[in-house]
Amino acid sequence: MGVHAVDLSLIVLVDPRQVAQDTVPELLSDLRRGGATAVQLRGKTSTTRELLAYGETMRAVTKALGMSLWVDDRLDVAWAIGADGLHVGQDDMPVEVVRRLVPGLRVGLSVGDPEELAYALAVRPDYLGVGPVYATRSKLDAGAPLGPDGFRALAAPAQAAGIPVVAIGGIEAATAAAVWAAGADGIAVIGAVMGQADKEAACRSLLAARGASR
Amino acid sequence: MGVHAVDLSLIVLVDPRQVAQDTVPELLSDLRRGGATAVQLRGKTSTTRELLAYGETMRAVTKALGMSLWVDDRLDVAWAIGADGLHVGQDDMPVEVVRRLVPGLRVGLSVGDPEELAYALAVRPDYLGVGPVYATRSKLDAGAPLGPDGFRALAAPAQAAGIPVVAIGGIEAATAAAVWAAGADGIAVIGAVMGQADKEAACRSLLAARGASR
Repeated sequence: MGVHAVDLSLIVLVDPRQVAQDTVPELLSDLRRGGATAVQLRGKTSTTRELLAYGETMRAVTKALGMSLWVDDRLDVAWAIGADGLHVGQDDMPVEVVRRLVPGLRVGLSVGDPEELAYALAVRPDYLGVGPVYATRSKLDAGAPLGPDGFRALAAPAQAAGIPVVAIGGIEAATAAAVWAAGADGIAVIGAVMGQADKEAACRSLLAARGASR
Repeated sequence: MGVHAVDLSLIVLVDPRQVAQDTVPELLSDLRRGGATAVQLRGKTSTTRELLAYGETMRAVTKALGMSLWVDDRLDVAWAIGADGLHVGQDDMPVEVVRRLVPGLRVGLSVGDPEELAYALAVRPDYLGVGPVYATRSKLDAGAPLGPDGFRALAAPAQAAGIPVVAIGGIEAATAAAVWAAGADGIAVIGAVMGQADKEAACRSLLAARGASR
């Protein structure tokens, strides 16, 4: 499997504790209409059984809609539900262990500083999540915000090595243009979409800013 | 693999947040000298990276000491470190999914009532953990204590079907004899060993009660 088959332009992170499972089809349809290309299942406080059931629903719906499905941290869940990929942070399973256990599964890796970037360039994940670009309440990463310039400094070497880079952390409609201008191949969000009443419009705004930056 | 190669007489659950990783060799040596036959890695609040590092240490030491190693809930961790088996509760991955993903990995299953027993008899895990026999502060199971008679009522049908049964939940040196007398094939503990200064003696006391019940 190559990551080139997967469009990472807009990844929306979904927490089972924030969205009831029976509303997942409607949610994902809204996201898809707005232009979201991928979703990530991220349930830090869910049980394994809950993640499996929720993930199976997300798998069926994303297949029907033509979106890719990623799972945060849990290789067992990603594997059981047949996700397109696993996203790991620095506290999660090392990329090389994931690849040894499930060859062919795509792996995305969070990077927030030059040391983590050096590791990433050595193991070559299918994409990098670089952030936090801005301050975030979702605590995706512990580091200080990079800002668009800091993002670009970490992203450029990876992109030069042929690894796509997704920007993450506190990105909102108002700041998306600066992130796209900094060279992001995609952006990943929670609040900028999940915190909005009209999620389709929220996705559209984030992607519209991409065109404006070109 | 058959569970018959594994001695489940005394399983001690180990939480990485309670025992520093560099003291694991000494801890497991003490447990082994006291007669413990197995340990289970159970880190509900640990990161995946912590579980892997801790589990790799437990794997090396248990191999050297001739103890079996089990991992609670996390199939990814059990698989990555080459554990002897995975222990799942009713909120964890279903036994049949574990077996589909990692054929040959042993699976233990927690059971606390007749409905859960019926499922267990259908899927035939390698062993059952039945409890809580007594009230427990470790909250291994949410149910009311079964007592020795309630334990026997759930254990006997499984044992008749050839599935070994381990008693769990609040078992202490003073109550171990009643648990063995109720027919347990093994007992699993946390506080009765980990809460004691002399862990070797604590293991010995729990197992000595077995002889007394025969």
